[in-house]
Amino acid sequence: MNNRLQIQTPHWGLHEISSQVTAIVNKADVEEGLCSLFIQHTSASLLIQENADPSARHDLENWLNRLIQEHDPLYTHVQEGADDMPAHLKAALTNVSLTIPVVERRLALGTWQGIFLWEHRRRGGQRSIIIHIG
Amino acid sequence: MNNRLQIQTPHWGLHEISSQVTAIVNKADVEEGLCSLFIQHTSASLLIQENADPSARHDLENWLNRLIQEHDPLYTHVQEGADDMPAHLKAALTNVSLTIPVVERRLALGTWQGIFLWEHRRRGGQRSIIIHIG
Amino acid sequence: MNNRLQIQTPHWGLHEISSQVTAIVNKADVEEGLCSLFIQHTSASLLIQENADPSARHDLENWLNRLIQEHDPLYTHVQEGADDMPAHLKAALTNVSLTIPVVERRLALGTWQGIFLWEHRRRGGQRSIIIHIG
Repeated sequence: MNNRLQIQTPHWGLHEISSQVTAIVNKADVEEGLCSLFIQHTSASLLIQENADPSARHDLENWLNRLIQEHDPLYTHVQEGADDMPAHLKAALTNVSLTIPVVERRLALGTWQGIFLWEHRRRGGQRSIIIHIG
Repeated sequence: MNNRLQIQTPHWGLHEISSQVTAIVNKADVEEGLCSLFIQHTSASLLIQENADPSARHDLENWLNRLIQEHDPLYTHVQEGADDMPAHLKAALTNVSLTIPVVERRLALGTWQGIFLWEHRRRGGQRSIIIHIG
Repeated sequence: MNNRLQIQTPHWGLHEISSQVTAIVNKADVEEGLCSLFIQHTSASLLIQENADPSARHDLENWLNRLIQEHDPLYTHVQEGADDMPAHLKAALTNVSLTIPVVERRLALGTWQGIFLWEHRRRGGQRSIIIHIG
């Protein structure tokens, strides 16, 4: 069964989507199985990371922004904006797909794990994630 | 159902395999499900990235080649050639497996997404990808 | 079918778990399918890499330790120890989930591939991996 989750991201950074994914899993009512997420974009990605302390999230964002910078003289793909090529690189180093087990009808995330949509364009955008449960 | 896709890569870099994967999905004729790709190598990997503009692909290759260089004095694993340890590192930072939903018998890639085999050895090689559809 | 694999890692680094995963796949006795691994932590991750030569493993560890350092002035998330924020970053760049095909009742790893738990905390810890076979 496939579900589509649409997220309008207001700006770049990590946006937690755990509650939306959990709601879809609860509705699916599958006893044991897998929940697979797939993001249909090349300048946004998926990440499972610590969701307790926002400082971890900020450090993740800042570290990746330092590793992958705008206006790098190496870039030739520049016609879609200074944040576009960095967005593709950030997406390439993180995830387009994630697979999470469903155990006893619940998403089997660890205690400190949250699911995040990582928006890599400064202004955000309309993002589409397909969620398959089976 | 498992299918094997054999690709002879002519040299290093991103090689698009979207059409080969699409052909396998079409033949499988599954209404709704998942297409899982797995590459059986440690010096080549999988990536979903923008397939419209070749400049994005070249920048991805060049950026990763700058981050992970040959002849790094840190390397001790050097007996299989100067491009071997960088190849393992590049594979480690990208993907050995990818999971893409199948919606209405079609691979649900986004508008700008293509599937790539990222060859990390300079001379390429015979690469094997197992594709499971179900 | 979900199985839980508990691993007590003695210290940071790559710890091979191929034999434990293979034992679970053998017991499951599935003819054709997928084996999905999910690690329930944000400071340890999963990696498939070369398992023949330990030098490749050491270079992987040392290279990532140089890229992602402790005591980086950028970090604000520092209250859980100097190795905590680097651990989250290392986990973010590697994998929380992996999907490996099962072909003729066997895990279809390539000749040189091994499955590793990559512990990112210096002192290690009790780690939990959920393995779904179906």
